[in-house]
Amino acid sequence: MRVLGIDPGSRVTGFGVLDIAGQQQLYVASGCIKTPPGATLPVRVASLLDGIAEVCKHYQPDVAAVELVFVNVNPQSTLMLGQARGAVLAGLVHAGLPISEYTALQVKQAVVGNGHADKTQVQHMVQRLLRLNGLPQADAADALAVALTHAQNAGSALKQLGSGLKMRRGRLT
Amino acid sequence: MRVLGIDPGSRVTGFGVLDIAGQQQLYVASGCIKTPPGATLPVRVASLLDGIAEVCKHYQPDVAAVELVFVNVNPQSTLMLGQARGAVLAGLVHAGLPISEYTALQVKQAVVGNGHADKTQVQHMVQRLLRLNGLPQADAADALAVALTHAQNAGSALKQLGSGLKMRRGRLT
Repeated sequence: MRVLGIDPGSRVTGFGVLDIAGQQQLYVASGCIKTPPGATLPVRVASLLDGIAEVCKHYQPDVAAVELVFVNVNPQSTLMLGQARGAVLAGLVHAGLPISEYTALQVKQAVVGNGHADKTQVQHMVQRLLRLNGLPQADAADALAVALTHAQNAGSALKQLGSGLKMRRGRLT
Repeated sequence: MRVLGIDPGSRVTGFGVLDIAGQQQLYVASGCIKTPPGATLPVRVASLLDGIAEVCKHYQPDVAAVELVFVNVNPQSTLMLGQARGAVLAGLVHAGLPISEYTALQVKQAVVGNGHADKTQVQHMVQRLLRLNGLPQADAADALAVALTHAQNAGSALKQLGSGLKMRRGRLT
């Protein structure tokens, strides 16, 4: 299964692609979609849609995992972030991907083992878990961390199934 | 020219379609796109995208006019509204429509002549200006008001052109 992790932002949206192979997570790619500075909102939405479409077309992920947004103190920033997030989700829906959402707390807990870890710790653990040669860029690291969180969750759901839990209509019972 | 006016909301998104024929604005249609209550965000984004696509396919507008969102006191509501707005803009970008944005102040000024008019006044003026038999439903009225605002702006830009202003590369100089 190939997972596309996304960390949406009003200026920079990070993405990270992983393959889950059994208990292993293999790094495929990561990067960021930058929206043109000073552009109007419709232009920024269009560039996010184009970016997401390109990433989906190029890497052909099976599922998407998106970070649930931290509500900012500044209402205008919160609105901007919400708009970017809406556009990103629209791009993923358009690409036909199932979407899971994870809070920053869940992501830090899954990757660092501490819900209050800082950005640098997340970067270091992403590098270690994915055996990368260098430290990934911050936005890409966050996106890879979301993808890793999904990989862990998907893995543990399968493990639970294996240990005797039952599914009915696609749900664990 | 056919204008699609949109009033985005996290639960209900109003739309209104007008034809501009010279100085006249002719009512074509209006209604609202409701997102399933209690649904997850990806499902709500998908239903907004489907709704916008259906309206664009059915009424074939030439341009879209969207109300600029009022920043709410509640950060969570602001985020939800932003996400809905991002999805709506994504739908319009996807339909290939040029998008204009108007603040609530501009809309009320254009339709009622008073930037601090209330919702009921907007509804009544929309009914009068478009010679409707009944009072339009509130979300539809707001969307029609945004479309009317765009019609007035488009009209006055043309009038200015006629009165001796020059355009260069598509811009007034």
